[in-house]
Amino acid sequence: MSQEKSFNDLFLKACKKEAVDHVPVWYMRQAGRSQPEYRELKKKYSLEEITHRPETCAYVTKLPVDQYNNDAAILYKDIMTPLPAIGVDVKIKSGIGPVISNPIESIKDVSNLGEITPEKDVDFVLETIKILRGQLEVPLISFSGAPFTLASYMIEGGPSKNYNQTKSFMYSQKEAWFLLMDKLASMTISYVKAQIKAGAQAIQIFDSWVGALNQEDYRTFVKPVMHRIFTELKGEDVPLIMFGVGARHLTSDWHDLPLDVVGLDWRYPIKEARENGITKAVQGNLDPSVLMAPWNVIEEKAKEIIDEGMKQPGFIFNLGHGVFPEIQPATLKRLTSFVHEYSAEKMSVLK
Amino acid sequence: MSQEKSFNDLFLKACKKEAVDHVPVWYMRQAGRSQPEYRELKKKYSLEEITHRPETCAYVTKLPVDQYNNDAAILYKDIMTPLPAIGVDVKIKSGIGPVISNPIESIKDVSNLGEITPEKDVDFVLETIKILRGQLEVPLISFSGAPFTLASYMIEGGPSKNYNQTKSFMYSQKEAWFLLMDKLASMTISYVKAQIKAGAQAIQIFDSWVGALNQEDYRTFVKPVMHRIFTELKGEDVPLIMFGVGARHLTSDWHDLPLDVVGLDWRYPIKEARENGITKAVQGNLDPSVLMAPWNVIEEKAKEIIDEGMKQPGFIFNLGHGVFPEIQPATLKRLTSFVHEYSAEKMSVLK
Repeated sequence: MSQEKSFNDLFLKACKKEAVDHVPVWYMRQAGRSQPEYRELKKKYSLEEITHRPETCAYVTKLPVDQYNNDAAILYKDIMTPLPAIGVDVKIKSGIGPVISNPIESIKDVSNLGEITPEKDVDFVLETIKILRGQLEVPLISFSGAPFTLASYMIEGGPSKNYNQTKSFMYSQKEAWFLLMDKLASMTISYVKAQIKAGAQAIQIFDSWVGALNQEDYRTFVKPVMHRIFTELKGEDVPLIMFGVGARHLTSDWHDLPLDVVGLDWRYPIKEARENGITKAVQGNLDPSVLMAPWNVIEEKAKEIIDEGMKQPGFIFNLGHGVFPEIQPATLKRLTSFVHEYSAEKMSVLK
Repeated sequence: MSQEKSFNDLFLKACKKEAVDHVPVWYMRQAGRSQPEYRELKKKYSLEEITHRPETCAYVTKLPVDQYNNDAAILYKDIMTPLPAIGVDVKIKSGIGPVISNPIESIKDVSNLGEITPEKDVDFVLETIKILRGQLEVPLISFSGAPFTLASYMIEGGPSKNYNQTKSFMYSQKEAWFLLMDKLASMTISYVKAQIKAGAQAIQIFDSWVGALNQEDYRTFVKPVMHRIFTELKGEDVPLIMFGVGARHLTSDWHDLPLDVVGLDWRYPIKEARENGITKAVQGNLDPSVLMAPWNVIEEKAKEIIDEGMKQPGFIFNLGHGVFPEIQPATLKRLTSFVHEYSAEKMSVLK
């Protein structure tokens, strides 16, 4: 029973809106470029090489949990990780991001996309999950990109500012678009189910760039496929989290979907989200740029978020976007400890 | 009287919420890279060279008005145009955007910024305005970048995705930040006043990237300086328009400012903006990506926007962001003509 005794399940409880002793904390991109140990590793290995080496990848994933005392780990990988399995030739280039040599241009290109067999194609991901479950004393989150965001890279050939080509494709080649959404949804579902089977205890779906669409287009071109994904994953009985940047105008649509936790970026105060009818658990949403400010500014802004978040059960403290490379690990450590202590004290007063 | 007779002032009337015969139309970035004539010119001249040659710049500005029959011209230049006058070493690089060799790092750098003397420093802009006023039969809009957006380039050294350095500077060096805002506001006010004196008939302020801030930070770090700018420009008696991308959450703050027209990006339906208390004239907001779609899609989406826009006086049809290079001039021409005809017909039925 010693393993169960030491296991910290506060994050899972918060996802389910159950009572917790203190507010659980994790940070998007907590593992990676902001950590000196990771930057050392990157001198030897590429991102792809790290994800393909389960022991190394488990080390990278676990490091920030040990260092910051965070309440959840998130598997280190990229939203591009499963795409080679379906025929996408993607390389992650330092300082640029994913670059795809065979972008999607036509329905023929979409038809040519294959299917994923996770046990064969991403065995290294599943192996890393198994290793981590033997090591971690906090829940392990895994994740997948969502079809719109994956499609944006596949159509643009890389990162984009305005997603013009993606939207042009969507408006002009509807049949190809919906086929692409459907194929990416199937991939996501298989990929996520295999990760849950391997031991992932929560899943975050990153539709990072879908905020580029207005609500009407989201409802027409994206929401149906998101409904399919969450419906098929719902049976797996692990918390499902949704996140995207600049997607405040889509949050009520996310709330309609059969998922558990709504991630908010830093521009959507928790108070307003709840006033607008978000009754699910919420995750967020300190602007990561604040972590470059003096500590008194960080503390003040974190306090506001915790105060609002704690007004209802179901709150996970996180950033409103990923940790960026210049953020100091010592700051993240201090922040975790502040959130734990401040919320525990508040919680004990409320009891 | 013949000049007055032929002058089309519908755009100015709509800014003032006066009655119009049809909805006036112009497009952000209507002059520039989407036009083959412009691309020809760019083989000979850089963007800076074009803006420094008043006859050429007037030609570039007027071209889309003649070709599309738009109801306003917008002076061709860049929001970076006035910055060299205050000591910023900026070059516009093709495919990248503005690149600044001496980014702002400290309060000393801010203190070293100079002042603009528009008649000397941007005489070429004023000369272009004078030429255009002799040629145009529609109002001439000029514009300026707003302090936050200008500062973002000056601090990051170029375009940015997350504005992390800008926000870090803002949180960590408050005194320097407010001095920078103040200096950029003074520059903007002088620059815009000189353009109005030269003949500009409306002014759009582009705070293109301020949507990266949440509302609380906007109110603390940016809104006061915007209030100063609009208050000082209000006396000039030309319509003042505000625009930024992804700034839906700041629109109510813009509405508080002494300005005339609120620009909306494509993710904030006019209907919702009005329900949320935007009673000023509105400008927008077709997603420019829609212009890559088949005509029936464009028409349907334009119709929705016109129908909503026309429900109250004070509506200017525009895109929700700038025209991008791949958009066909023939599509823009057809769209202008559709907006004119559809709105004129609707207007005559309403009478």
